[in-house]
Amino acid sequence: MRGRPNRQAAINDLLVRNVRLDGAAQTVALAIRNGRIESLGAAPDDWSGPTVDGKGQLALPGLVDGHAHLDKTMWGLPWRPHSAEPGLAGLIGNERAGRRELPSVAERAGGLLDAYIERGTTLIRTHVDVDIDNGTSAVESVAQAAADRADQIDVQIVAFPQSGLLVAPGTVELMDAAMSAGADLVGGIDPAGFDGEPVEHLDAIFALADRHGCGVDLHLHDRGALGRWEMGLVIERTRALGLTGKVIVSHAFCLCDGDPTIPALVEQLGELQIALATVAPGNVDPLPLDLLDEYGVGVCLGQDGIRDLWSPWGDADMLARAGLMGWRAGYRRDEDIARCVDIATTRGAAAIGVSNHEMVVGGRGDVVLVGAAGAAEAAVTSPPRSLVIKSGRVVSNSDR
Amino acid sequence: MRGRPNRQAAINDLLVRNVRLDGAAQTVALAIRNGRIESLGAAPDDWSGPTVDGKGQLALPGLVDGHAHLDKTMWGLPWRPHSAEPGLAGLIGNERAGRRELPSVAERAGGLLDAYIERGTTLIRTHVDVDIDNGTSAVESVAQAAADRADQIDVQIVAFPQSGLLVAPGTVELMDAAMSAGADLVGGIDPAGFDGEPVEHLDAIFALADRHGCGVDLHLHDRGALGRWEMGLVIERTRALGLTGKVIVSHAFCLCDGDPTIPALVEQLGELQIALATVAPGNVDPLPLDLLDEYGVGVCLGQDGIRDLWSPWGDADMLARAGLMGWRAGYRRDEDIARCVDIATTRGAAAIGVSNHEMVVGGRGDVVLVGAAGAAEAAVTSPPRSLVIKSGRVVSNSDR
Repeated sequence: MRGRPNRQAAINDLLVRNVRLDGAAQTVALAIRNGRIESLGAAPDDWSGPTVDGKGQLALPGLVDGHAHLDKTMWGLPWRPHSAEPGLAGLIGNERAGRRELPSVAERAGGLLDAYIERGTTLIRTHVDVDIDNGTSAVESVAQAAADRADQIDVQIVAFPQSGLLVAPGTVELMDAAMSAGADLVGGIDPAGFDGEPVEHLDAIFALADRHGCGVDLHLHDRGALGRWEMGLVIERTRALGLTGKVIVSHAFCLCDGDPTIPALVEQLGELQIALATVAPGNVDPLPLDLLDEYGVGVCLGQDGIRDLWSPWGDADMLARAGLMGWRAGYRRDEDIARCVDIATTRGAAAIGVSNHEMVVGGRGDVVLVGAAGAAEAAVTSPPRSLVIKSGRVVSNSDR
Repeated sequence: MRGRPNRQAAINDLLVRNVRLDGAAQTVALAIRNGRIESLGAAPDDWSGPTVDGKGQLALPGLVDGHAHLDKTMWGLPWRPHSAEPGLAGLIGNERAGRRELPSVAERAGGLLDAYIERGTTLIRTHVDVDIDNGTSAVESVAQAAADRADQIDVQIVAFPQSGLLVAPGTVELMDAAMSAGADLVGGIDPAGFDGEPVEHLDAIFALADRHGCGVDLHLHDRGALGRWEMGLVIERTRALGLTGKVIVSHAFCLCDGDPTIPALVEQLGELQIALATVAPGNVDPLPLDLLDEYGVGVCLGQDGIRDLWSPWGDADMLARAGLMGWRAGYRRDEDIARCVDIATTRGAAAIGVSNHEMVVGGRGDVVLVGAAGAAEAAVTSPPRSLVIKSGRVVSNSDR
């Protein structure tokens, strides 16, 4: 892809002069050709493409949200007080009733994508509801909103049976249809604690993934021994179907309680490259990052829902979220806080199957510039995004 | 104070037209005369003082930080990576070495006070280090920075033996001197876990408070049964010296672990009006607010240190901090999130001994205007402070 520049592709060419990489004192010029980083250092002698001045700012890889729910948001709408009864069933019922009054999914998801882009996110994985009320329409709408912004942000869609799979007959068939309607991965939700048929639930979603040749991203809030038992079922099926590197368990609260059986499970996650998505929740203990590192387990970070019928929290700012992750973990040292930024960029991208999302030659030309000494300060202060670049194309410029 | 307006005091008179109070749909005019709220509703017929347009924004009481460390901050200085060895002793040693290289306490504390004022805080209680290296100089410097801003923010100073009281001979005498040098309250720190002489430590600080006729604000990080045993000693001494309503325990992590003996302790806190200060920490469980409410225990919220040699976190924004408190507690409903704003305003002020800090006739004329539907949205979104009013005087105006 590199070496012989394609002169036709100037729209994905950009030279950003005068930027700093995390940990470096000197500024460099960052050349992106055909959407990939061609050089980092001196500017290419023969550069004739577009050029911008980075003004000595810090260049980070484009931010990555590995766990979002674009279809649910009320972002940009007037404040609406939270109205659900407590508990998961109360939340789900409240949403199915309340969402009828909202503007279209395409409009809301699109508006939220615009907010993500402005805040420097260039890659996002969103779960999208599939249920017997709305069928696959939300998947279609989010796919359309994403297609309308394909030059600005990469969007992965997980078909998500929010209202249950087996408790809501007909949903398995709708999930199958969703995979043809624009979804990229098969989702699932608390096979035991919510759906009540853990083995059947997991068999169904893994069969769908096998049939469509795609990955799985499972919501698993079930805690303690129950959640760990389900994690074991996920591991079994990932191994049996050869889905190494294609499965994510989202939330995984069952790995956060310090139980002595956790390391053995984590070792198997590492072996099968089953990654974890965390949203750095405010009131659940953090994932055991040191242990995950020890076994090379992939991790990504997400906002979860943003200003929706589930919760008023969230703000589409993945740099601020990386800061919350570090604050929740009690991190103080730059290298620890920078780990969270890595999870919100390069490591998060890898967890959701996107390699080379980093500031190296050959890396994806997704870059965000901020006024900060380094990644740690950026996460702590969450400064404005001066410039957001997607595949060598400027998609947001606050200096304009 | 009200009733017969003092025509000389126009500097503390202000009519704010067109503002909304939390929970009200209609806008009102808010008249402040001689620094106190004179009316909330129709504008006074005879108003001849200064007038501003509130533009329909939400009017909250001035924000209150009940637990700060102004003298420690590196706010506004270039980013400095955290450099302490782990543990309390490592942190204290790192600070005593590193602070010598920093600009003066007056300059740093003053700059941080300016940031607080701009972000709508009108009342703050700060602990200030007293130790054998620096004696009472930090207390004097913070008192001067506060005096320079006396029209903009009220500052209470706690003399704080950060490096220990009995482990550092001479400190008791310096604490005594600090009370004459500008401190308003006597502080203390982990009488058992850090100072190693719990009974003697508490006897010493309560004797100082008794001698100077002031209150006590004790840092108590000691957890579990140890911390609760110390809390019992605090209760004994508060009762014996008749210090009802004049004692705060800061942090109080020992009340956060759900132990069955906690309610009996909390009942005594309520009886003696011993309040608690929390900083809504990122990685310690929250205070049991429902239980504190049941026994009428006062609570205030603070930022703790801000961007200092202890930690890179903190941002002088008490509305954002109220949001973090609600997020950490898992609150979703408006009334729950608004409780956190109450703790960051009216209830927090009462906890540190300042009554009538609220949006009622006769209340203190400290008001902050923000663009939000109500207190819950304000805490979640932490919008810019359009107008900050201290005792009827505009001290920050972002529309200028």
